[in-house]
Amino acid sequence: MEEVSYKEKYMKLALDLARQTLGQTSPNPSVGAVIVKEGRLIGAGVHVKAGEAHAEVNALKQAGSDAKGADMFVTLEPCSHYGKTPPCSKAIIEHGIKKVYIATLDPNPNVSGRGVQWLKQEGVEVETGICEQEAQKLNEPFFHFMKTGKPFVTLKTAVSMDGKMATHTGDSKWITSETARLDVHELRHRHDAILVGIDTIIQDNPRLTTRLPHGGISPIRIVLDTHLRIPLHANVIQDLSTETIVICSKEADAEKELTLQARGVAVIRLNTDRIDISELLTVLAKQNILSLFVEGGAKIHTSFIESGYVNQIIMYMAPKLVGGSDARPFFSGKGAEKIVESLPFEFVEVKSLGQDLKIVARPIRKEAT
Amino acid sequence: MEEVSYKEKYMKLALDLARQTLGQTSPNPSVGAVIVKEGRLIGAGVHVKAGEAHAEVNALKQAGSDAKGADMFVTLEPCSHYGKTPPCSKAIIEHGIKKVYIATLDPNPNVSGRGVQWLKQEGVEVETGICEQEAQKLNEPFFHFMKTGKPFVTLKTAVSMDGKMATHTGDSKWITSETARLDVHELRHRHDAILVGIDTIIQDNPRLTTRLPHGGISPIRIVLDTHLRIPLHANVIQDLSTETIVICSKEADAEKELTLQARGVAVIRLNTDRIDISELLTVLAKQNILSLFVEGGAKIHTSFIESGYVNQIIMYMAPKLVGGSDARPFFSGKGAEKIVESLPFEFVEVKSLGQDLKIVARPIRKEAT
Repeated sequence: MEEVSYKEKYMKLALDLARQTLGQTSPNPSVGAVIVKEGRLIGAGVHVKAGEAHAEVNALKQAGSDAKGADMFVTLEPCSHYGKTPPCSKAIIEHGIKKVYIATLDPNPNVSGRGVQWLKQEGVEVETGICEQEAQKLNEPFFHFMKTGKPFVTLKTAVSMDGKMATHTGDSKWITSETARLDVHELRHRHDAILVGIDTIIQDNPRLTTRLPHGGISPIRIVLDTHLRIPLHANVIQDLSTETIVICSKEADAEKELTLQARGVAVIRLNTDRIDISELLTVLAKQNILSLFVEGGAKIHTSFIESGYVNQIIMYMAPKLVGGSDARPFFSGKGAEKIVESLPFEFVEVKSLGQDLKIVARPIRKEAT
Repeated sequence: MEEVSYKEKYMKLALDLARQTLGQTSPNPSVGAVIVKEGRLIGAGVHVKAGEAHAEVNALKQAGSDAKGADMFVTLEPCSHYGKTPPCSKAIIEHGIKKVYIATLDPNPNVSGRGVQWLKQEGVEVETGICEQEAQKLNEPFFHFMKTGKPFVTLKTAVSMDGKMATHTGDSKWITSETARLDVHELRHRHDAILVGIDTIIQDNPRLTTRLPHGGISPIRIVLDTHLRIPLHANVIQDLSTETIVICSKEADAEKELTLQARGVAVIRLNTDRIDISELLTVLAKQNILSLFVEGGAKIHTSFIESGYVNQIIMYMAPKLVGGSDARPFFSGKGAEKIVESLPFEFVEVKSLGQDLKIVARPIRKEAT
């Protein structure tokens, strides 16, 4: 029992370190590492940004020559390849680490298991699977991306108790309280990209930036705009604090494309008449977008949900009744004929957030049943 | 500290006894009583049905002559008047109870405090306010009725995540899981009456009875039917296991009224062209209906909510998306122009119920802000 508690105690510390970097390491995962010798913590490291040192190396730097004979706890399998930085496995071996505890293997099929193999070959003891689920959950978009080649898609909506995003006049400020809206900005910070439809740009003209009291990273802004109708005075074009990518169909106006590009806006022209979600996600994956935060209206939400590519819905529900048959729903579509034909989800999280509720639901895939 | 624990321990036991009779004592409240002497429980009593002995008397019956010098814990002030049974205060005095702990005074302004006064006059020690809020909450409809003269109104709805009660074809079987539906039957058991609109009768032909695996009491069925369109083959007319009251406007067909009455159905004709919720509730109060469970469609729900007489909404939410702009909402109405004009509620309870959520919301009254 004591052994379990020793392993979990330090792995949880490494996970806690990693957790604090969510949103800032993409396209790399968030990773934490600690080094322990004779019951004393002698090094702690975290990967803070792609291109900079990995967690293991930072921890080893602190431990220095004391690392010889020590245990390392790391939330992801140490890398074995020369990338922007030298391989961590090499550094671990060179520092004389005795045993490495690893939460989970690298999900990238090209490298998974290689770090472990190298360490073992050089006589380093290795134990994997400590807090494995927690570690995979922590970097869920990264694991999903490696497995599917597509971004992890989170659809966010803020609704009244009667499922409305806005009144029949289009007013939506604000359905939810400040506490819920702050949570949304934290989620923006954690995502690589945020996506809306052109109607949202035209109607609400949002900035789509991360505005947290102590700062944060704004996601890349993606606008689905089949016919390149986006106005040049739109905030997502005027505001240069982060990148904007406009996605259009193959028929969209070429001149408008040039105008947008001259403003520093990237335009990606798909090969189809209308925007296909599967193709879109493949295109975004090529831009190193591992996680996508969809903040659309009913049309965008419905396209995404019906495509089958939504991984979770985060619904902030406010204790209000808006009413009105023309008030804006968060989901529309043709609609099920029978209840048994409705789209099945499961609630995975429910919590109070100020006066509102935060409800997280995930689709139940047919493959899974 | 020990004194507090002594009082609360036995009062909670009395409250637990009372809680098990919710739904079966109307128009009386649920009341429990226990008698304790020298640290030993010597009597426990509960009021099981209107017209039968009160909790205090049942507890005293068990304690017998041992009650002399003992403490009594009772969840509601003992009565001081001769009703269907002799006054409990008298029995308490006659048995020589030394001290009575009372959770809450009787809310009936005509008798509140009189029981306490009588006991004190006869030398019985009295302490009130133990677990007071819990005791008032337990019999909330009774307290509400005594204060306002109107039934406590609970509006129940079962919706998908996108706020739909049925698909655009009208299919609604079943939005929620069996666990949630069982909870609804428990609530039917606890209510004096259940109310629907004539459209629900015509479209779904429900029985509106309580169907729990171990039995239960079916509420009185109330059908709002302005023009007496109710078909004679309707289940609420054919099924005689509980009473049905049809409410119509002053213009409704007199012959149909006679036909219904011949079938044992009570018809109450209001003084107005259309059914006014305030007048309706006054009429139901005269029928000794203290708690009303509204299981309507959007029209009925909207009338009730807009009337301001809804005390709580219980929303069972299923992890499904129904979709379709013609799918049935649970609330409609003209709709707010601006979000700030939407009807304000507060969430008072959220819990998982099988795969569904049970969300309880209460209106925020303007007086209260």
